[in-house]
Amino acid sequence: MGDAAGIGPEIIAAAWHDIADNIDCRPVVYGHPEIMRRAVALRQANIEVVEIPSLDALPRLDDHAVSAGVMPCLRCTQDDVTDVRPGTVDARAGEAAYQAISAAIEGARASRIDAVVTAPIHKAALNLAGYHYPGHTEIFAEKCAVTDFAMMLYLGPGPQMHAAHGLAAHGLAVVHVTLHTAMRTIFDQITVENILAKAKLADGFMRRMMGTSGDCGGISPSSPAPFVRPRIGVCSLNPHAGEDGLFGTEEIEIIRPAVEQGRRAGLDILGPFPADTIMIDAKNGRYDAIVAMFHDQGHIALKLLNMHGAVNVTLGLPIIRTSVAHGTAFDRAWQDRAHNSVSGESVASGSMIEAVRVAARLAKSAVTDRSS
Amino acid sequence: MGDAAGIGPEIIAAAWHDIADNIDCRPVVYGHPEIMRRAVALRQANIEVVEIPSLDALPRLDDHAVSAGVMPCLRCTQDDVTDVRPGTVDARAGEAAYQAISAAIEGARASRIDAVVTAPIHKAALNLAGYHYPGHTEIFAEKCAVTDFAMMLYLGPGPQMHAAHGLAAHGLAVVHVTLHTAMRTIFDQITVENILAKAKLADGFMRRMMGTSGDCGGISPSSPAPFVRPRIGVCSLNPHAGEDGLFGTEEIEIIRPAVEQGRRAGLDILGPFPADTIMIDAKNGRYDAIVAMFHDQGHIALKLLNMHGAVNVTLGLPIIRTSVAHGTAFDRAWQDRAHNSVSGESVASGSMIEAVRVAARLAKSAVTDRSS
Repeated sequence: MGDAAGIGPEIIAAAWHDIADNIDCRPVVYGHPEIMRRAVALRQANIEVVEIPSLDALPRLDDHAVSAGVMPCLRCTQDDVTDVRPGTVDARAGEAAYQAISAAIEGARASRIDAVVTAPIHKAALNLAGYHYPGHTEIFAEKCAVTDFAMMLYLGPGPQMHAAHGLAAHGLAVVHVTLHTAMRTIFDQITVENILAKAKLADGFMRRMMGTSGDCGGISPSSPAPFVRPRIGVCSLNPHAGEDGLFGTEEIEIIRPAVEQGRRAGLDILGPFPADTIMIDAKNGRYDAIVAMFHDQGHIALKLLNMHGAVNVTLGLPIIRTSVAHGTAFDRAWQDRAHNSVSGESVASGSMIEAVRVAARLAKSAVTDRSS
Repeated sequence: MGDAAGIGPEIIAAAWHDIADNIDCRPVVYGHPEIMRRAVALRQANIEVVEIPSLDALPRLDDHAVSAGVMPCLRCTQDDVTDVRPGTVDARAGEAAYQAISAAIEGARASRIDAVVTAPIHKAALNLAGYHYPGHTEIFAEKCAVTDFAMMLYLGPGPQMHAAHGLAAHGLAVVHVTLHTAMRTIFDQITVENILAKAKLADGFMRRMMGTSGDCGGISPSSPAPFVRPRIGVCSLNPHAGEDGLFGTEEIEIIRPAVEQGRRAGLDILGPFPADTIMIDAKNGRYDAIVAMFHDQGHIALKLLNMHGAVNVTLGLPIIRTSVAHGTAFDRAWQDRAHNSVSGESVASGSMIEAVRVAARLAKSAVTDRSS
């Protein structure tokens, strides 16, 4: 549900029909039923929010009780969250968001649910409630006892997006070698090892999205057709890929060796190329994944390509977790401004729909992996 | 004409009809008539290339002899450039490109022509010919005896672009506080003074494009209507605008003070904002100009918004100079691949057309300035 004062509840309500009708999944909301009822009312959506005491009460897929008209909601937060005013930083909303996340992680770790999709939380509200994390991802990492994880941005080839871009058939993944760190500090983190590690994460993720996971490239002995390897493009750090060392030597000393090492390891990887041209090539479908050197390279491109369709995927966790790629938007929350996309101030549900779609795809691929 | 082995000649040929018919200007090509004839033949364009011995031979606008069917070409290069093979680095092409640039600068400085629009040159060919410049711009600066200049990227609201984006009515200018320099070295250049200087250059340029130059903001005493000031947005250096100092302090210590100083100086300037969100706002028409902190911030955005319509404008010169925003494309030159934009490998003339359009607009505004 995310922060109750933000746009999380209403984008879930706005996305519900698409999620229930078009995605192969059984969705359940972790949050507070009253908040979700208000969000449904705000949207004037024809959805009944049904509070369920536990996951055991979740109707099975085949009995058709989960439908676009029914939203099961697991109450995992205190009632005082219903007093939170929209668009405000409130410890009660931070506490409720934290409880919902914790319950969902617990459900996923116990294999009661197959994936967790998160709506936006507000860091200050989380802090006020006594939880000092930079964001969602660190809560997941701590609760899963993982230190090596990565955030990936993904833009899927969803039906509503095709018109807007010409991406490859399985969408575009962007991993960042450095992310939430000051620009002055990125240089120490741009190493052959880190670039290679991110490229491999991107390769593994796109294999799952492309349905070619389980083989490490090359020809599968049991199949006459060669596996299609994700095509990975690597950004330069410096302008013009450093102009042969004129504008920096990282391309020569670090990035190119990392790419060569990746090729020897079986990756279909190219680069380094100037970030501005590689993003045009990615837009035109020449890559399945991009390794960006820092935050803005990836985020400027993916947000311009599709502001509302980008999804965050946390890689390296033992559970599947995706997230919308936007924030709580307190300035626009609870004003029923969804889909007002012309003004550029929309509260659009596209990212939520895509986040669920990607989570469902990953969950399915995980099942295939286990059964094969 | 640019480098004869590159795509310069053919984009001029491809753009010629648009330039002659739709832009208020009298174009003349500085280069070699034989090269231009080959480009016209490649394009199968109905254009007669007419060699003129000097600018005095240029027909006057009102006698209609300059039309889409006639291309006046001033021969200012040696004949051996006609032996250059397409797509190759050749000293003869470098020499010819340099001679054409020199002649055009001379013409502009002598007020024989109103503006110079440059096609792409190849740095290695220029070097082989004995001219050791990083690019065009430095030749202009040296010949104009200017040390303080800036390169601006501009995306105009040209007719063929409206469908692709929702920019403001007068287009979008992007100036870079740092540009062709290693990322490790940008930090010393990001100062209050430099940010302010670039913002003022962007403001002045957009005033000319908006037709409101000649007044320094506020209400003009002679006019009842307030002058419309260009709306300038300033990018952050760090991700998330530094998250209140968590990811770097440049926003707090340098960029915000620069913005405040700009406001006090009469600029309509806002920021710093995260670069990924400011570019979405710019796309949605909320800004007329963006001040980017480094190369990729501006270039990734403008190229994604319109790969083929972006124009380079050199600010700070005593003459008007615009340029296409792409390179020589040796791999695609002289293959008649213009307008093959679906494949992502097009040799499109949009940037050339826009470069001429902007140059003509600036020349007109300069005339207005002088006469008022």
